[in-house]
Amino acid sequence: MYRSHNCGELRTENINETVILSGWVQKSRDKGFIVWVDLRDRYGITQLVFDEERTSKQMMEQAQNLGREFVIQVKGTVIERTSKNPNMPTGAIEILVSELTILNEALLPPFTIEDKTDGGEELRMKYRYLDIRRNPVKNSLIFRHKVAQEVRKYLSNEGFIEVETPYLIKSTPEGARDFVVPSRMNAGQFYALPQSPQTFKQLLMVGGMDKYFQIVKCFRDEDLRADRQPEFTQIDCEMAFVEQEDILNVFEGLTRYLLKEVNGVEVKEFPRMLYDDAMRLYGNDKPDIRFGMQFCPLSPEAGTFEPKGFPVFDNSEIVLAINVENCASYTRKQLDELTDWVKRPQIGANGLIYVRYNEDGTLKSSVDKFFDEAVLKTWAEKCHSKPGDLILILAGETNKTRTQLSALRMELAERLGLRKPNEFAPLWVLDFPLLEWDEDTKRYHAMHHPFTSPKPGQLELLKTNPGDVKANAYDLVLNGNEIGGGSIRIHDKKTQALMFDYLGFTPEEAKSQFGFLMDAFQYGAPPHGGLAFGLDRLVAILGGQETIRDFIAFPKNNNGRDVMIDAPAPIDDKQLEELSLKLNLK
Amino acid sequence: MYRSHNCGELRTENINETVILSGWVQKSRDKGFIVWVDLRDRYGITQLVFDEERTSKQMMEQAQNLGREFVIQVKGTVIERTSKNPNMPTGAIEILVSELTILNEALLPPFTIEDKTDGGEELRMKYRYLDIRRNPVKNSLIFRHKVAQEVRKYLSNEGFIEVETPYLIKSTPEGARDFVVPSRMNAGQFYALPQSPQTFKQLLMVGGMDKYFQIVKCFRDEDLRADRQPEFTQIDCEMAFVEQEDILNVFEGLTRYLLKEVNGVEVKEFPRMLYDDAMRLYGNDKPDIRFGMQFCPLSPEAGTFEPKGFPVFDNSEIVLAINVENCASYTRKQLDELTDWVKRPQIGANGLIYVRYNEDGTLKSSVDKFFDEAVLKTWAEKCHSKPGDLILILAGETNKTRTQLSALRMELAERLGLRKPNEFAPLWVLDFPLLEWDEDTKRYHAMHHPFTSPKPGQLELLKTNPGDVKANAYDLVLNGNEIGGGSIRIHDKKTQALMFDYLGFTPEEAKSQFGFLMDAFQYGAPPHGGLAFGLDRLVAILGGQETIRDFIAFPKNNNGRDVMIDAPAPIDDKQLEELSLKLNLK
Repeated sequence: MYRSHNCGELRTENINETVILSGWVQKSRDKGFIVWVDLRDRYGITQLVFDEERTSKQMMEQAQNLGREFVIQVKGTVIERTSKNPNMPTGAIEILVSELTILNEALLPPFTIEDKTDGGEELRMKYRYLDIRRNPVKNSLIFRHKVAQEVRKYLSNEGFIEVETPYLIKSTPEGARDFVVPSRMNAGQFYALPQSPQTFKQLLMVGGMDKYFQIVKCFRDEDLRADRQPEFTQIDCEMAFVEQEDILNVFEGLTRYLLKEVNGVEVKEFPRMLYDDAMRLYGNDKPDIRFGMQFCPLSPEAGTFEPKGFPVFDNSEIVLAINVENCASYTRKQLDELTDWVKRPQIGANGLIYVRYNEDGTLKSSVDKFFDEAVLKTWAEKCHSKPGDLILILAGETNKTRTQLSALRMELAERLGLRKPNEFAPLWVLDFPLLEWDEDTKRYHAMHHPFTSPKPGQLELLKTNPGDVKANAYDLVLNGNEIGGGSIRIHDKKTQALMFDYLGFTPEEAKSQFGFLMDAFQYGAPPHGGLAFGLDRLVAILGGQETIRDFIAFPKNNNGRDVMIDAPAPIDDKQLEELSLKLNLK
Repeated sequence: MYRSHNCGELRTENINETVILSGWVQKSRDKGFIVWVDLRDRYGITQLVFDEERTSKQMMEQAQNLGREFVIQVKGTVIERTSKNPNMPTGAIEILVSELTILNEALLPPFTIEDKTDGGEELRMKYRYLDIRRNPVKNSLIFRHKVAQEVRKYLSNEGFIEVETPYLIKSTPEGARDFVVPSRMNAGQFYALPQSPQTFKQLLMVGGMDKYFQIVKCFRDEDLRADRQPEFTQIDCEMAFVEQEDILNVFEGLTRYLLKEVNGVEVKEFPRMLYDDAMRLYGNDKPDIRFGMQFCPLSPEAGTFEPKGFPVFDNSEIVLAINVENCASYTRKQLDELTDWVKRPQIGANGLIYVRYNEDGTLKSSVDKFFDEAVLKTWAEKCHSKPGDLILILAGETNKTRTQLSALRMELAERLGLRKPNEFAPLWVLDFPLLEWDEDTKRYHAMHHPFTSPKPGQLELLKTNPGDVKANAYDLVLNGNEIGGGSIRIHDKKTQALMFDYLGFTPEEAKSQFGFLMDAFQYGAPPHGGLAFGLDRLVAILGGQETIRDFIAFPKNNNGRDVMIDAPAPIDDKQLEELSLKLNLK
């Protein structure tokens, strides 16, 4: 038996008990006549004590030579500490060691195994097994487990069945690139790894499975960013005989349950916002509504820009302002720095206009040459500004200006501490456009995916004004992050065929790629719809972090590499030969 | 709203309520003046009624034209049935329909959607979404969900943390062939899909994660059989600071819990058997102990074969018998058929010897020419036979004879109805050999995997008698199926390096393939071990079935194809081009 107790559970009630503990040497303090060792395992830290009086000389020496991260087993008696540590759960006791066994030695770790470590990210990724010993990473993995467990519990109680769908599937292009897997048994052919179980869950609905869910890995062979892994985990759901409202209710319930169980936070009914309004008010389809700063249009129609003569405004499609509370005191230097910030290529604005609404009621702007105080006053009214506030204005082409101002809004919120990690502001965004224009291919593409149904009665509009057609599609946004999205699907073959046609698929392409789904629709497909949550992001947000990597046991870096085991690995000649055979290249 | 109730829940208490139901038309009976329709959903069947007196003529016609598997919605009143059906949960009521909406029409399904269908396996696989509508398949998927859910519940309560390990990993050959995934970001390199998360879970142990589990997909690019899918699901576990006994206790607890929760069966403490004994007594490392028929050696030493002169026995390494109770009455024809059965190439025996122990106490054998009744009597004693039993004997080379007799034993048990699906006989098989000889490569291979530790003190034996070395490895057998297996792992770099050396890896090969694990072992690896359960087989056995396919939503056929969507798919020129680029072939 390696242990009678773990390193986190002994208390004063255990005093005088003989115990066996195993774990890692966190650190030791050697005073010559006495040695204290902090012994660590997953559950906590317990202090061991060896002293001249009560410990054999040989063991004393052994204790003095224990290195950091050595794996040891001790037998000993629980005794009361003379100086207790109230910050440690086991801080009232220590173990007087009678037997010490070194189970494994350890090299000095390349970074300190402490909550605040001296190791940089690449180094910690390379030695991820050491990084996981640190509380923040260990606790993140335990937190992820808890979230997944609660999701399963909630959905199972709601009557959902977790069904495993296959990983080796047929390639059905859904936007991103598929990872492909050459087949050995069927040379010259290949499987794809699923970008999502979309078509399978729809087939389950045709199969009458009704309430399906799955926590499932998905794969996209896309360029990576800090927050995007080539493999990611999705909470995937689908329901039959439902309308949008039914789906929103279930997943609002799930999210509220998670916030309660995992974070101890009660949230009210989730607000709902139309996609068009989100774009108009926040320039963003996933607005962070933990704070205000909604966009205020300073429209020419209202005579706002009289007297005319400021060319920037005159040549702009739109002029948008945000009101930044209590920031009239920003210095010229601060404002210049903000101006530089919006002019960076990543943002791309031409400049930034400001209006200071001073505490004394006067208004002072960077465009005083063009607009007198009366005009500024009308702007301030539009923005519901009060003395002490700062108004920031961008102008230009509508979509670009919205995107730029949205970025500025988020940046200011970040700087002003308005994006509080422990505050949760969920939001449903509804009625997404069905299609979006793709400049590269000069074609409309499905914004969500080609199985999304248009709003009732809008199918005909596809021919004349495709960009205006709204979809039965919805996103759940939490603190400015899209954590889930879904739609009511098309469930009849005719509409689905029409949709593929509008999206530029020839009937042959549609048949070869999605024929199995359209065939299935002929045999009695029920109305259905669903939603998928990104588990990685959900966990990170609930955990109060910006990055998803900390919540993944073995993440990949920006090059798609598993730093620790250095995958993907090069192909050697023999493997290349075998692959070529699989691919039927020879 | 598509429904106020599902099709399985209405009872006499609901009489007079107005309800809305949606579902599929299971069948309808049209008597002209009255039409009954069975409406089906995931939850059950409810009878709808339309009659001349209370239904409009138009709706009456609509009802008369409803085809099988049409998807419909009805509004109506719950009324009491005149002739109740006590075999149906909803059999006391029916719905008098006031509104009928056809949600989707359906082609006539290619096989009947009934518990006993007229569709063959290939056809049902091709239309799996229709097959899933049938109760046996639907219930199997729900059963699988329940098993997985209970596994997670039990292990979480025991303090295990579910940690997701990556799917895109480095190829680390573990016996079977890896599926490979060319990397686009890193041309000329590739990921592999994991055959198991073995090395990752060991790294988690080095990382202090202590009690890990995961229900996870694994992949093997192997030839398929009816019961082997290229992708399969594993309950994967690992624990630190444990000995074999700790692991057996946890997973015996899990299995006992599942049998109780899922099957309502209480089982006693699991018996344990050494591998050598399993081979000796059953010729099989996964004996089905729901019935007896242990092997009885009829050894020459005991003078059993006097007088000498039966060449088959004289030239055999081993002579083994089984006693088949109450089968002395087998006719000559039945015995000839059994002889043909063991002589089939799949079994490969040269012949079968029988001894009838007649009810009257006389003994009659197929080798009466060589052995008199007194000798037969000694055999019968060895086999603990009683009058009325049949003794069957095979002879030859030890391993082959054991395998052949094991097959015969299972076949007889099958024919005699001794393999009862609702009886559960778990068994631990312990102390597997560390290595097994591979005739193809003329080398020893790790029987489990190269991370398995030898029994204490046996490492040295590797040099002199590698075949005799036992491993700290164990299998859990249920009803003659291996449902799980595992081992205590090697946890120090030196032993692991030695092991790779014995297995014929050069230090360079060991480093390039497993360097990351051996590196990790230097930084304080704890003693650890684990186990993996095959979920597919576990579910099938608990569900009382022989085949795993029925419990998988979208299984592949023996060619590794997903029949329904016909994957893998051929590579077209564009895809081949892209793949070649990925592979750096151009």
